[in-house]
Amino acid sequence: MTAATTDVIAIGNAIVDVMAPAEDADIARLGLAKGGMTLVDTARAQELYDAMGPAREISGGSAANTLAGLAALGASCAFIGQVADDQLGEVFAHDIRAGGIAFATPSRADEPPTARCLIFVTPDGQRTMNTFLGASQFLPATALDETAIAAASVLYLEGYLWDPEEPRKAMRRAIAAARNAGRKVAFTLSDAFVIARHGDDFRALIAAGEIDILFANEHELAALTGEDDFDAGIAALAPKVSVLVVTRSENGAVAVTGGERTQVPAEPVAKVVDTTGAGDLFAAGFLFGHVRGRPVADCLRMGAICAAEIISHYGARPEADLAELIGAI
Amino acid sequence: MTAATTDVIAIGNAIVDVMAPAEDADIARLGLAKGGMTLVDTARAQELYDAMGPAREISGGSAANTLAGLAALGASCAFIGQVADDQLGEVFAHDIRAGGIAFATPSRADEPPTARCLIFVTPDGQRTMNTFLGASQFLPATALDETAIAAASVLYLEGYLWDPEEPRKAMRRAIAAARNAGRKVAFTLSDAFVIARHGDDFRALIAAGEIDILFANEHELAALTGEDDFDAGIAALAPKVSVLVVTRSENGAVAVTGGERTQVPAEPVAKVVDTTGAGDLFAAGFLFGHVRGRPVADCLRMGAICAAEIISHYGARPEADLAELIGAI
Repeated sequence: MTAATTDVIAIGNAIVDVMAPAEDADIARLGLAKGGMTLVDTARAQELYDAMGPAREISGGSAANTLAGLAALGASCAFIGQVADDQLGEVFAHDIRAGGIAFATPSRADEPPTARCLIFVTPDGQRTMNTFLGASQFLPATALDETAIAAASVLYLEGYLWDPEEPRKAMRRAIAAARNAGRKVAFTLSDAFVIARHGDDFRALIAAGEIDILFANEHELAALTGEDDFDAGIAALAPKVSVLVVTRSENGAVAVTGGERTQVPAEPVAKVVDTTGAGDLFAAGFLFGHVRGRPVADCLRMGAICAAEIISHYGARPEADLAELIGAI
Repeated sequence: MTAATTDVIAIGNAIVDVMAPAEDADIARLGLAKGGMTLVDTARAQELYDAMGPAREISGGSAANTLAGLAALGASCAFIGQVADDQLGEVFAHDIRAGGIAFATPSRADEPPTARCLIFVTPDGQRTMNTFLGASQFLPATALDETAIAAASVLYLEGYLWDPEEPRKAMRRAIAAARNAGRKVAFTLSDAFVIARHGDDFRALIAAGEIDILFANEHELAALTGEDDFDAGIAALAPKVSVLVVTRSENGAVAVTGGERTQVPAEPVAKVVDTTGAGDLFAAGFLFGHVRGRPVADCLRMGAICAAEIISHYGARPEADLAELIGAI
């Protein structure tokens, strides 16, 4: 096995977030599931956009956000994801490359347009996401650069992207490429709805030992294991992966590795402005520690610090100097 | 003269701001004039965008920002400006309409794309703007709704848009329509470069009594009057317009009306994050007071409060509840 030349390569949705403040009454009136992520078609996306207040556009996408955090921390990163050949695609590509992340997936000439996520942010900082997947779901397996995957210490996969068929095939090929090269595979479960639809796939991958590092929040843990009790869920899942990381919002996070459980409290935040990207940036901090060979307690703390930064402002891409923030660890 | 049904109708550039933090060293390396506004062509826009860090997109445009402030304060507003039929055009149109502003100018099917302004924001909060005017400069005189202009108490014009030929013609027609209907014309000088190119036009309009309310900052005042001394500049210009408003950044603002000079200090700001839109939002607050018939001292205070809000965060569209902020006045 040759030395890795990249720390983390990720496959994920290539999305631009369209974010606006909203009141709880708006969420109710529009029939949205507060705090959740819902896939929307063109007509519903237009309806929701028309109902949205003045917005701002900031690149997003779960795995892409994680890479933005990793790159800001100093890791070398590459991204694979599908944008269309349009202005939002240019925005996404610019932002990810400007963050120092290699991104070589060619844009797609045909309809549909680049993915966007319409995010309503309530005064409590909670985000309610409505994703129009657009071009993102058409990532072809041919877009994979298997040499690049084999050259990265960690392949990081976004559960959201397991839903559409073509990217799912691409991700299966990517897992094989990474494992053949002796690399680690990290996976985030993303959302309970993905588990509802593809839980059998995920459980099979985990049972087959294809996932080394698994990220979940407590709801996803329950959905995947069928255990409503947190400790029971941990006990059921932890033996099946090398590293299990479960985030619990304001209750901190837990990691289990080699049968040993480590936990960390949430990092204090003066004001939670927008929780978009909290899990993504937790994963960034944790993975950064991991690829740098740091003890798991340090990895968790790095995750908590990065998550705290991202929820202190609008948008899921870091604004503060993350490397400086974790400097003391 | 029938009663006005709109408070302010404005004609301006329809621009999406693309904003990113930058260091002073970046400004120097890229050959930018710190704090200024420079028009850029497609190639230079691409070069600067490539050199820019991860960015966010927020609708902008000077007069459009002013209307966003006015609408947030509770004024009824309408905007005339040209976007292309593309994604950034949709973003601009969405944001202005979502702010409660009537916007009926049809998007333009041909190249070039919707205007964007690449804004580098240095740690001192200063913004350095590079504007690709795109579709915005092709606003045709036929896009004017003269009935709508005649129905608004104030026609507000952005000096920036005096530069391209077609919008200049449109603005001359708009001035005539407003004056024929007995409405007031407000004008912002926008930037010293505009005065360098079109100062004779502006001086002629002012001399002919076509401008009722004139907004300038102290640099523009000097450029227009040729007086380096602030008081001499005020003395030269004030007798020629009903209301002269001159903003002086951290030194507050001055208004002269009917030979009487009123001034207001700058509103304190905890931290200046991004000065983009400071003048635009000052104009919003002032005009709101004006159309509500408030004394000029109140108009100035409203301007100062709105300017303070806009420089406390990224972007030139208000985030806080401006009506609440000026509530006590």
